[in-house]
Amino acid sequence: MKVLVMNGPNLNLLGTREPEKYGNTTLAELAQGLVTAFPQVEFDFFQSNHEGALIDRLHAARDEGVVGIVINAGAYTHTSVALRDAILGIQIPTIEVHISNVHAREPFRHHSYIAAVCVGQICGLGIQSYHLAVQYFINQVA
Amino acid sequence: MKVLVMNGPNLNLLGTREPEKYGNTTLAELAQGLVTAFPQVEFDFFQSNHEGALIDRLHAARDEGVVGIVINAGAYTHTSVALRDAILGIQIPTIEVHISNVHAREPFRHHSYIAAVCVGQICGLGIQSYHLAVQYFINQVA
Amino acid sequence: MKVLVMNGPNLNLLGTREPEKYGNTTLAELAQGLVTAFPQVEFDFFQSNHEGALIDRLHAARDEGVVGIVINAGAYTHTSVALRDAILGIQIPTIEVHISNVHAREPFRHHSYIAAVCVGQICGLGIQSYHLAVQYFINQVA
Amino acid sequence: MKVLVMNGPNLNLLGTREPEKYGNTTLAELAQGLVTAFPQVEFDFFQSNHEGALIDRLHAARDEGVVGIVINAGAYTHTSVALRDAILGIQIPTIEVHISNVHAREPFRHHSYIAAVCVGQICGLGIQSYHLAVQYFINQVA
Amino acid sequence: MKVLVMNGPNLNLLGTREPEKYGNTTLAELAQGLVTAFPQVEFDFFQSNHEGALIDRLHAARDEGVVGIVINAGAYTHTSVALRDAILGIQIPTIEVHISNVHAREPFRHHSYIAAVCVGQICGLGIQSYHLAVQYFINQVA
Amino acid sequence: MKVLVMNGPNLNLLGTREPEKYGNTTLAELAQGLVTAFPQVEFDFFQSNHEGALIDRLHAARDEGVVGIVINAGAYTHTSVALRDAILGIQIPTIEVHISNVHAREPFRHHSYIAAVCVGQICGLGIQSYHLAVQYFINQVA
Amino acid sequence: MKVLVMNGPNLNLLGTREPEKYGNTTLAELAQGLVTAFPQVEFDFFQSNHEGALIDRLHAARDEGVVGIVINAGAYTHTSVALRDAILGIQIPTIEVHISNVHAREPFRHHSYIAAVCVGQICGLGIQSYHLAVQYFINQVA
Amino acid sequence: MKVLVMNGPNLNLLGTREPEKYGNTTLAELAQGLVTAFPQVEFDFFQSNHEGALIDRLHAARDEGVVGIVINAGAYTHTSVALRDAILGIQIPTIEVHISNVHAREPFRHHSYIAAVCVGQICGLGIQSYHLAVQYFINQVA
Amino acid sequence: MKVLVMNGPNLNLLGTREPEKYGNTTLAELAQGLVTAFPQVEFDFFQSNHEGALIDRLHAARDEGVVGIVINAGAYTHTSVALRDAILGIQIPTIEVHISNVHAREPFRHHSYIAAVCVGQICGLGIQSYHLAVQYFINQVA
Amino acid sequence: MKVLVMNGPNLNLLGTREPEKYGNTTLAELAQGLVTAFPQVEFDFFQSNHEGALIDRLHAARDEGVVGIVINAGAYTHTSVALRDAILGIQIPTIEVHISNVHAREPFRHHSYIAAVCVGQICGLGIQSYHLAVQYFINQVA
Amino acid sequence: MKVLVMNGPNLNLLGTREPEKYGNTTLAELAQGLVTAFPQVEFDFFQSNHEGALIDRLHAARDEGVVGIVINAGAYTHTSVALRDAILGIQIPTIEVHISNVHAREPFRHHSYIAAVCVGQICGLGIQSYHLAVQYFINQVA
Amino acid sequence: MKVLVMNGPNLNLLGTREPEKYGNTTLAELAQGLVTAFPQVEFDFFQSNHEGALIDRLHAARDEGVVGIVINAGAYTHTSVALRDAILGIQIPTIEVHISNVHAREPFRHHSYIAAVCVGQICGLGIQSYHLAVQYFINQVA
Repeated sequence: MKVLVMNGPNLNLLGTREPEKYGNTTLAELAQGLVTAFPQVEFDFFQSNHEGALIDRLHAARDEGVVGIVINAGAYTHTSVALRDAILGIQIPTIEVHISNVHAREPFRHHSYIAAVCVGQICGLGIQSYHLAVQYFINQVA
Repeated sequence: MKVLVMNGPNLNLLGTREPEKYGNTTLAELAQGLVTAFPQVEFDFFQSNHEGALIDRLHAARDEGVVGIVINAGAYTHTSVALRDAILGIQIPTIEVHISNVHAREPFRHHSYIAAVCVGQICGLGIQSYHLAVQYFINQVA
Repeated sequence: MKVLVMNGPNLNLLGTREPEKYGNTTLAELAQGLVTAFPQVEFDFFQSNHEGALIDRLHAARDEGVVGIVINAGAYTHTSVALRDAILGIQIPTIEVHISNVHAREPFRHHSYIAAVCVGQICGLGIQSYHLAVQYFINQVA
Repeated sequence: MKVLVMNGPNLNLLGTREPEKYGNTTLAELAQGLVTAFPQVEFDFFQSNHEGALIDRLHAARDEGVVGIVINAGAYTHTSVALRDAILGIQIPTIEVHISNVHAREPFRHHSYIAAVCVGQICGLGIQSYHLAVQYFINQVA
Repeated sequence: MKVLVMNGPNLNLLGTREPEKYGNTTLAELAQGLVTAFPQVEFDFFQSNHEGALIDRLHAARDEGVVGIVINAGAYTHTSVALRDAILGIQIPTIEVHISNVHAREPFRHHSYIAAVCVGQICGLGIQSYHLAVQYFINQVA
Repeated sequence: MKVLVMNGPNLNLLGTREPEKYGNTTLAELAQGLVTAFPQVEFDFFQSNHEGALIDRLHAARDEGVVGIVINAGAYTHTSVALRDAILGIQIPTIEVHISNVHAREPFRHHSYIAAVCVGQICGLGIQSYHLAVQYFINQVA
Repeated sequence: MKVLVMNGPNLNLLGTREPEKYGNTTLAELAQGLVTAFPQVEFDFFQSNHEGALIDRLHAARDEGVVGIVINAGAYTHTSVALRDAILGIQIPTIEVHISNVHAREPFRHHSYIAAVCVGQICGLGIQSYHLAVQYFINQVA
Repeated sequence: MKVLVMNGPNLNLLGTREPEKYGNTTLAELAQGLVTAFPQVEFDFFQSNHEGALIDRLHAARDEGVVGIVINAGAYTHTSVALRDAILGIQIPTIEVHISNVHAREPFRHHSYIAAVCVGQICGLGIQSYHLAVQYFINQVA
Repeated sequence: MKVLVMNGPNLNLLGTREPEKYGNTTLAELAQGLVTAFPQVEFDFFQSNHEGALIDRLHAARDEGVVGIVINAGAYTHTSVALRDAILGIQIPTIEVHISNVHAREPFRHHSYIAAVCVGQICGLGIQSYHLAVQYFINQVA
Repeated sequence: MKVLVMNGPNLNLLGTREPEKYGNTTLAELAQGLVTAFPQVEFDFFQSNHEGALIDRLHAARDEGVVGIVINAGAYTHTSVALRDAILGIQIPTIEVHISNVHAREPFRHHSYIAAVCVGQICGLGIQSYHLAVQYFINQVA
Repeated sequence: MKVLVMNGPNLNLLGTREPEKYGNTTLAELAQGLVTAFPQVEFDFFQSNHEGALIDRLHAARDEGVVGIVINAGAYTHTSVALRDAILGIQIPTIEVHISNVHAREPFRHHSYIAAVCVGQICGLGIQSYHLAVQYFINQVA
Repeated sequence: MKVLVMNGPNLNLLGTREPEKYGNTTLAELAQGLVTAFPQVEFDFFQSNHEGALIDRLHAARDEGVVGIVINAGAYTHTSVALRDAILGIQIPTIEVHISNVHAREPFRHHSYIAAVCVGQICGLGIQSYHLAVQYFINQVA
């Protein structure tokens, strides 16, 4: 069972910027944590600050047997119609996650262009947002 | 470890109304499913179509040793400032859940009055939205 | 043929408050008027100032052989998504009625959360709004 | 007792366009149905796709002893301030009717320029919307 | 010196509808009043409830040596982009007039589609709005 | 002289939740403070988290010789058209009070549905908001 | 193969008004240009400044074997819901065209009521907007 | 017959700033022009860049036998509720004038806070806007 | 104990303009009433129609031992960010008062720029709005 | 004669995603179709999911003798001010095309940032949208 | 080389109010700092809390050989169309400055009525905002 | 002292596109001008049309001893939340600059996503906007 974990802009800074908002875990530690927690899952991790690179990566997933995508599109969540179209185009179940509670931040973070084309959204639960999304895919298969 | 699972208006109809939108599981089955899945948790379930009754129940939780609340406030999610104030007032970590993906429905369902005072939000994952919220509390304690 | 006539908040004051706006007929007289005018119909009347009680009553109608509902949701017309969901959930043809012409009053009364899930809307025709709604159900059956 | 039944743009297509939305009854059949149902009423029917012609017809009604007007202004409902002023100017009780439930359609159909100057509005009840409006005038006189 | 005085929808009712808002002068008396007051002006009067007819009339003015147009477009003031384009297209100085003070009425009457392509606007001064507009053209020529 | 003091949702938590925002006085102490301060007034106190219960209580006041109502509708201030209608319906002078300065909080708290049908509004003055409202009624009678 | 070319308000002025915006070609020349360019097409041309006349003409097309309609609705593009309903009602493929680039003009010209019920929109390409629309119908048939 | 002519901020620059927008006539010349044109009127002229000074001057007019006020409030037209209240408070018929056509300029100039409490508005007619306003008062008296 | 009572534009007309809205008490009588009612308070009264003068006066209060300010900023309430900044800058507890119920008047009067930087707001209670504000300061000190 | 055909994000999926919306033609087939249809044109094709790459490509066109650009900017149409600036900066006539009718889809697709700086827009005509845009450039040259 | 430095409402409090927001430098020190830093410039300083006085001062600058104006209009930045017109009227290059970063404060401070008629805007750089503006004028002359 | 000068999309065209708006200086000349003017500063220049590349470059600055960043984000200023987050994440003082006065251009250029997380903004001062920003950092250090 293959799951693609996508991270968008600035998430490469995770654990090193604004820890009061995003915690101290780095992106590498986050990935390792998922690998450890879910040995039955084959993970693929991808992070980019480039909107186009995220789209390219989503397209590629069509030929890789990915059964689910966990995406934290970062700021592109709120501005990218192109990511929305990419998710729509590849027809792979996708869950939108956020570490912080976007609904408790600036108004422009309350809206997500991608939420409507995802299976659902998990936000505000820190690193667990990713874990629970993966758990969902495992449970669905079970 | 005690978790309160709250369900708001019309969720008593679960499994019997609009199954294409909400699935076939009844509210009783949903509760039983949680009890079965998480034997280590002491659950308390409450459903009401009355906004005031939901507030009363939240208040009562302050004296019951509840460590986490999972709330699907149904339609009150979008209209009740009073529920927001209740959650704020009792200072117990709360996760907002929805069975359907509210961000993919009518525009007035995109906004939640309670999201900003919850730890986070899980939506669109069907009955699993509840399970994952409970899992979060367990993981937090662990 | 069974018809449920529901009245929402403040309609218990009918005939005694603001008669220039709502007329002099009391709610009891309104009910009696319907019973007299439509002997072939079995009526059930319900009024409550509680949003939750109105929802409870709508749910109960599912098991009562009600063929049509006439609802004057009063102020909840403009604020209650929960009533909308309840009407949607019970799948019984419902007509929204208003005594006064809501479109000629404050702007916040022009919008109805429940109109879109009802068969239609009759407003501004005084007590007749109820009579004509009942007439509709009779004609439909005929 | 004289009633003027006015129909606005595209209603001449009734019964022949989009029957799933407007039904199979033609405008002529609708008129005949009213004549048959209400033998005590002297009807005058008028349909035009011209906003100005509808205004002209309303003005003429002032000298014809018309006691009530039933108007389905079609699309002009949502765009014509001039029709609003015409209804206001002639001082004859008017009821706005719609075959479909305008509140369940595109947002620009939720607003009516003429509703505020009519006695009331009946919508969503198919051909019966017209019948019930006429019934109202009969009952008022009775 | 030729001046065209145009009146839009419902102004044929002038003096007979809502006198508290529009006064008691009829449209014919208004015309006669202008003829009497300004003997040096050759007047042409036109009233129609048809938007298209008003546009046709404006177009015709191009070949008639009209030096100024006084237009009370009535309700079309607020809804007609086509009249705006017609005035723009004929390149004859035009003044928008209103009998009542549109800025003191419903919000949708505050905006004029044609004001921006007219020389200016005179409103609220009753029948004098027309007289002063004509006076403007006379003074300009002088 | 009889005054009804109404408190809406979550105000039963007064003194125990968010003291930095609402102070340390409990609702019981607030009531006692009023009784002590105004011995010449016969007080009736009512608190509920139920919108419907608040409406019911307002209706009942019509037959109790109440000369003034002091209402802190809490969150219902911002969402309840039904409370507005209830106050309008009972025709007893009512003053809206708030402990905190609602105009300095979230934007959705700046608007009050009930303010327009009350005599006036007092906010931001802590417990004194209630005292001053009672003082007003006393002065009016004096 | 029959194509109906419709022109709305003020387009009869084409070539004579604001040439810097609309060019020097008259409407007659435009028609002749289409006839010359597409000898295989049987054209029918219609222009009117009357919204109702445009609707009437569209209705008539149902019985004329018209396979495609090219419509430049002029200012009615932005204000006429009735034209939208007419196009929807006749079920003949229609392309909306504009000579100028409406998206580069006043904001109220950016929105089209008819675009959503047309096959598509061509704008800004001068007289060619018409030619290309006709070419589309030819290619579709081929 | 006494008329007060008020000019607001920046109108002291008249004739010397942006002549393509406001013309070459200075404020002194404008005043002289009115005196010459209307010998039967006793004029009082006042210009100030101070909102408060304009209010003070309006108040003073109550005791001066002024029968009409012509006010070009300049930029305060669009921002001053205080001027609105002053005009409302003194109960002297007032006409709002503008030299340029405010409806053809920036959107924030389309709205006037004072228009609704004036008799009417004259704009876009250059210096004549003042002359015609005075003419109105003369005609009213006549 | 020193209290500064500030009154903004047009309040010098109090008692003489629109008595049905503002009552018959003049500003001088209002001041005298406060002096009489609160002999223990040293009052300073200031009224101006000039926004700048009100700001200057507020600044001066910093060196005068003023313990509280009661301000009815009149129309500047709704338009003056500068007054807001002045109140913020002087750090003296300030209460906003209004004689009429601003929440029941034109929409542009519902918003106050200064409310958010005041302790609170009292409105709609006539002259008593001032008395109760002073009472608040006395009680606070007590 | 050289024409650059640009395709934005997700158009590389053409023919393979959502065929009911975008058809079955692949991007390569689309390109081949243009080459075949217009042998007199030298085409250059470019597709990228990267906004920056699209901008880079547009800039490069300045030195390549490109006489016209056909751009389907995909989702960037609705979000990219940078593409607008790029088109503006290179001063090469550009036509915006869309395969689907964007005006009949989600509201956020109705607005185009680039339309205002293009010659015009062709949308909804499937693959023909590209063909007709190329035809336009050929006709312009002819 | 003469530069006029204008300061609007509440800036006389500089250095004494809210130092965390505006710093500790007084307005006099700010002026002295500019004089010291730019010996080659002849400075004129003006501060007023009166909108009208600021306008008067701007007008006077026309006859004083001022080559540049540095204006911190304080709160009037956001509310004064009259200042905008004054700057437009005097045709002297003006730079808008702010000590704090207005774009990071309340939403109503993001908009400036005067920015569009100034050469540019410098904000957020503390006292340096003034220094850099003066430097600009020096560099321009150089 | 190290300063990073960042330029966003289309600024590589500087000096060659729309010189009336952006001047004739190329980006290379701009860089050289800064190097010449500030010999005491070690500059690093970066331009990209790729949002992601700009983010990558900002991140890299964290390890380079950069004391200040001058950024002209071009069109991304108005659309990129990701750049905002990047600036927030790296915690290096940043000044937003623009060559043209964005507040005097299209409305969508008035808003900046990055302004609120920068120290301040300088716009409209041509190439000097960059020079003054650098001067700020020098002065701060001094």
